[in-house]
Amino acid sequence: MIHPLSILSEEETNLARDVVRAAHPNTVIDFREIYLQEPPKAQLLEFLAIEHAGRLSPTTPQPPRLALCQYDVIGSDRIPSYEESVVDIVARSRVHHTVVGKQHHAALTLSEFDTLVDQCMKSPLFQQALADFDLPEGFEVVIEPWPYGGLDSTEDNRRYFQALCFAQDKRSGNADSNFYSFPLPVIPVMDAHTQQIIRVDRPATGGKGDGLVEQTFKRDIIGHCKPSEYVPELLPEGTRKDLKPLNVVQPEGPSFRVTNESLVEWQKWRFRVAFNPREGATIHDIWYDGRSVMHRLAISEMTVPYADPRPPFHRKQAFDFGDGGGGNMANNLSLGCDCLGVIKYLDAVITQPDGTAQKLPNAICLHEQDNGIGWKHSNWRTGRAVVTRNREFVVQFIITLANYEYIFAYKFDQSGGITVEARATGILNVVNIDAGKVSEYGNVVSGGVLAQNHQHIFCVRIDPAIDGQNNSVIVEESHPVPMNAMTNPNGNFYKVTKETVQRASWIDAAPQLNRTIKMVNPHKKNPISGNNVGYKFIPLATQTLLADPESVQARRAQFAQHHVWVTKHRENEFYAGGRYTLQSQIEVGGVADAVRRGESVEDTDVVVWNTFGITHNPRVEDWPVMPVEIFQLMIRPADFFVANPSIDVPSNKNGSSRLADSECCRKAHI
Amino acid sequence: MIHPLSILSEEETNLARDVVRAAHPNTVIDFREIYLQEPPKAQLLEFLAIEHAGRLSPTTPQPPRLALCQYDVIGSDRIPSYEESVVDIVARSRVHHTVVGKQHHAALTLSEFDTLVDQCMKSPLFQQALADFDLPEGFEVVIEPWPYGGLDSTEDNRRYFQALCFAQDKRSGNADSNFYSFPLPVIPVMDAHTQQIIRVDRPATGGKGDGLVEQTFKRDIIGHCKPSEYVPELLPEGTRKDLKPLNVVQPEGPSFRVTNESLVEWQKWRFRVAFNPREGATIHDIWYDGRSVMHRLAISEMTVPYADPRPPFHRKQAFDFGDGGGGNMANNLSLGCDCLGVIKYLDAVITQPDGTAQKLPNAICLHEQDNGIGWKHSNWRTGRAVVTRNREFVVQFIITLANYEYIFAYKFDQSGGITVEARATGILNVVNIDAGKVSEYGNVVSGGVLAQNHQHIFCVRIDPAIDGQNNSVIVEESHPVPMNAMTNPNGNFYKVTKETVQRASWIDAAPQLNRTIKMVNPHKKNPISGNNVGYKFIPLATQTLLADPESVQARRAQFAQHHVWVTKHRENEFYAGGRYTLQSQIEVGGVADAVRRGESVEDTDVVVWNTFGITHNPRVEDWPVMPVEIFQLMIRPADFFVANPSIDVPSNKNGSSRLADSECCRKAHI
Repeated sequence: MIHPLSILSEEETNLARDVVRAAHPNTVIDFREIYLQEPPKAQLLEFLAIEHAGRLSPTTPQPPRLALCQYDVIGSDRIPSYEESVVDIVARSRVHHTVVGKQHHAALTLSEFDTLVDQCMKSPLFQQALADFDLPEGFEVVIEPWPYGGLDSTEDNRRYFQALCFAQDKRSGNADSNFYSFPLPVIPVMDAHTQQIIRVDRPATGGKGDGLVEQTFKRDIIGHCKPSEYVPELLPEGTRKDLKPLNVVQPEGPSFRVTNESLVEWQKWRFRVAFNPREGATIHDIWYDGRSVMHRLAISEMTVPYADPRPPFHRKQAFDFGDGGGGNMANNLSLGCDCLGVIKYLDAVITQPDGTAQKLPNAICLHEQDNGIGWKHSNWRTGRAVVTRNREFVVQFIITLANYEYIFAYKFDQSGGITVEARATGILNVVNIDAGKVSEYGNVVSGGVLAQNHQHIFCVRIDPAIDGQNNSVIVEESHPVPMNAMTNPNGNFYKVTKETVQRASWIDAAPQLNRTIKMVNPHKKNPISGNNVGYKFIPLATQTLLADPESVQARRAQFAQHHVWVTKHRENEFYAGGRYTLQSQIEVGGVADAVRRGESVEDTDVVVWNTFGITHNPRVEDWPVMPVEIFQLMIRPADFFVANPSIDVPSNKNGSSRLADSECCRKAHI
Repeated sequence: MIHPLSILSEEETNLARDVVRAAHPNTVIDFREIYLQEPPKAQLLEFLAIEHAGRLSPTTPQPPRLALCQYDVIGSDRIPSYEESVVDIVARSRVHHTVVGKQHHAALTLSEFDTLVDQCMKSPLFQQALADFDLPEGFEVVIEPWPYGGLDSTEDNRRYFQALCFAQDKRSGNADSNFYSFPLPVIPVMDAHTQQIIRVDRPATGGKGDGLVEQTFKRDIIGHCKPSEYVPELLPEGTRKDLKPLNVVQPEGPSFRVTNESLVEWQKWRFRVAFNPREGATIHDIWYDGRSVMHRLAISEMTVPYADPRPPFHRKQAFDFGDGGGGNMANNLSLGCDCLGVIKYLDAVITQPDGTAQKLPNAICLHEQDNGIGWKHSNWRTGRAVVTRNREFVVQFIITLANYEYIFAYKFDQSGGITVEARATGILNVVNIDAGKVSEYGNVVSGGVLAQNHQHIFCVRIDPAIDGQNNSVIVEESHPVPMNAMTNPNGNFYKVTKETVQRASWIDAAPQLNRTIKMVNPHKKNPISGNNVGYKFIPLATQTLLADPESVQARRAQFAQHHVWVTKHRENEFYAGGRYTLQSQIEVGGVADAVRRGESVEDTDVVVWNTFGITHNPRVEDWPVMPVEIFQLMIRPADFFVANPSIDVPSNKNGSSRLADSECCRKAHI
């Protein structure tokens, strides 16, 4: 039996493709995505209730198995019509069809990027622009396709792409020689409908005091740039030799089980891992020891706005999930030493331009890791120390977006906690700056290379199901209380306040008040404390979007302007920045719109969104590949359990490590 | 040759003891501490300069080798005189002597705690108080000694201790049965000079609405309390069986070297590890690849104020470093599975009441660990992924303070970063609450057990030495800029401001401005960016001290009221909360006083202090032993290097883990 949350197989994907093709006879269709449209929540919950009761049988009613198909129908004028169909896989029929409307754009595809590269090379306009430069012998131009960003208000809302350009030193014959260290100040723009390069933007290359548009570049455009290699064989001094191996071995195998493709069981946790081309790995139906914790957990969106005011850099703003799909960009994780220990990989399925399914192998990895001490207490009277390790289970995927990479992990621990982690790494997006200049728009990280200031702002979507679907959200704060004879005679008291969120709204982080967001079941009390059972998190007080609220950057990324959004669940409302972000001018159907509905969010199917990020004013140390910056949203039980759930973790000494210890110390003479 | 930063050996300690004894003939001396008084900085720097130049020789002038001896001289009236002597170890003579003054108290010693336990048991007053309770058959009273906290203004400043009391179920015969789950509402107070129990405080046990002092307890005082065990053999269901081993093995040994007792070299890092009874492990003379980064790094102080306003709970405020000594309370780390992999332990030396040295074995552990991906980039054109692991080197010590434990780690990474980590674990400090009641002063975490709201506030002292001793501190912020035609035509620009701190001052965290503290060398610029070379951190915006500023809790913990303090270095000014915290009524000689001096801190020997912590309103899940809460101060290079220092870390696949993988997956059928 296919579980209703299992991703579409290749066969199902191809079946959906055939249904869509048949619905559009004699038409050219350019497919964007075909993936599981999750079943209507009510029907899914019915099924899950039967599943958790252990009463699944061949006659259990299955929610519909639906494929969401997004595609362009290419008309004779080459202006595509962006349409969406929902196909019932079992019935092999289309059950829903929408023409999305021209104000929205379909997500980009890699084939459009390929077209952009080809068209640049063929473009006389682009070649003419390049003729302003003298590239050294052996260098060739490299085209880095990018989404166009938010449209200026004066522009027609056609479909555009822009290309950032670099030069690559081909003399080593190594195709991985780092071209980002040789940026070229030309940005060709393609009209995706006509597939023509319509313009080549010429960003300024000046420094402090040079104004926003003045052209000050030299013909010898990369003469002041330096190689900045990262592949080991191109490092001038090779890799370091003094790092000895550190091996993680699990001689008895891992402590987790994966069954039915997607069902993970580990240390009293039980959940399903799915994947879609937009959000990447998603976690569903999360239970702990027979109790429901969350219905769905996902990285919903992220935006990376750049702060260089010189046109056209204001259009450098990626929505890495909405524009191209975080899942589409997922790495094959077996192609690098991404994790230690015993790894279980899960494959995913994405869609080719003709609608045919393509396996994305090893898109998700599952593994256990050790995260230091879990809990410890020493009884000083007896000298007895009891100490446990903090074992974590990790669901990880990694996406590459041209120069940058993000490593996302859902980490489950033995104490009932869930941590959503994002690591930013990869190569900074950089532009050319004249020799000897510095800029207030970024930092010079290599000769002639300006790394522009920017932000990375993530949003995690939490659909809690604390012992059931109807939950409330409480804002808990700790407030000082002035010294007074009645309630605070010695001034040490502080007051903990709790307020239930009544209507959909946003809430900002307030660390000075220890503001904490609690998701609780209003109908169930902890038998010990009498508080409602719940899970909590302290929203990270990271800087929100800095762009002027009236700017296009800000208008299209309203989710990035507050830390927490509380909304009422609505079918298929998964995306913080709205469903259609590519080239958007304003956020439509995102969290801000959901909040504007003003629905009651008390004792209902509530959704909580958490925005966090980094203002990244680059360091020289971030070049040529940036050491990971780590962000963690820690979601922890708060009176959900009747005691520390990890109190029964064994506290045995790890003999193998210990054995290695004495031997190795002798060997190493330490 | 003994390095000037090496801790005093047992022999040196005993020699200092003898010198002090000889200076106080015919007198009873109660020793508190004998430990290295670090050499005057100027002399130390001279020595270190010669050392780093590789010119050490037997004739190199050595800074004086000094022992700081703290002790009470017990007069005939039994009122001790708290005195400090500095002994020159080489000259075997006392070079300095101070009578501290009666407004300050020497740090507590475990022998005073022993006295308190004895005196309680003998005290008719205490026995009389206990007579109000009926303890069940098989239960015995346990005395938990505590510092007295800040004196009320009406009290004589004698030396007091208080005892929190519990009952232990002796029927299992297991001495580690958890007595904290049976709290008794009596707090005997001892005058340490007379060693008499002078009073038994009777805290209220009521709940909401019950007022601050009303006595509402029942004779059957723990009849509503429940066992809450944590030692594995007492767990009703034993430990879980489904956790398979995860072993860290280093077949070629570790990548670090320890020479000359204290010199650590690892992956271009070079520093010394020392230890003192107050701060625990301290890190000195930190260099990376031949360049100086910091002169000294230590956990300076921490305070744990409790928020229950009912007397005498306002006196529950520990200064865990100043009151008893973080180092004195350090665990023997080989007595538990504290770390995985190859561990090197360092011993420390503490002082017995008669001044005799006592080895504290395995007080510090050194090891390497893996912290996930270090950096990664995939070239989507070629499919080539280059990915490195993030190896860390950890200097760790763990302290036990009665019920609580803290795990402190200095973590060095391959990208030039230093992370100071504190993990809070152990057992909550709890009090009795009447059956069926709840309280606004804390959370009921077990039958009859109220865990009071409290804060843990840490302070890390950083003595930077960025390419030399004379450094400046820059506050860097990112500010929005309103859209305007001249500088921000599209509204995406934000402005990065930098201001040099000129006079000693405090600075609060301001995440909404991305406020970043940079420690820079004002005389040296990064050759690539042109910025001053530096290290930076973003102060964690955790809640500062909540107590009323006029309360004793607040007056004695001024360091806990702001996130960052910038001061000018002064000899032996190491302690954020002042040198004498035990029973203090006001912070003396701490960071607030240092700031009040108003010295210039530009281009000089500057010290930076960072305060962070947690407002801990306990969860039921924190009981009976609390899962670690983790805090990290991340100090990162900021244009100190000319590129990512970890770019040369090898990116080889880890074969051993990989081999295990396929075998184990087969075995485990995943």
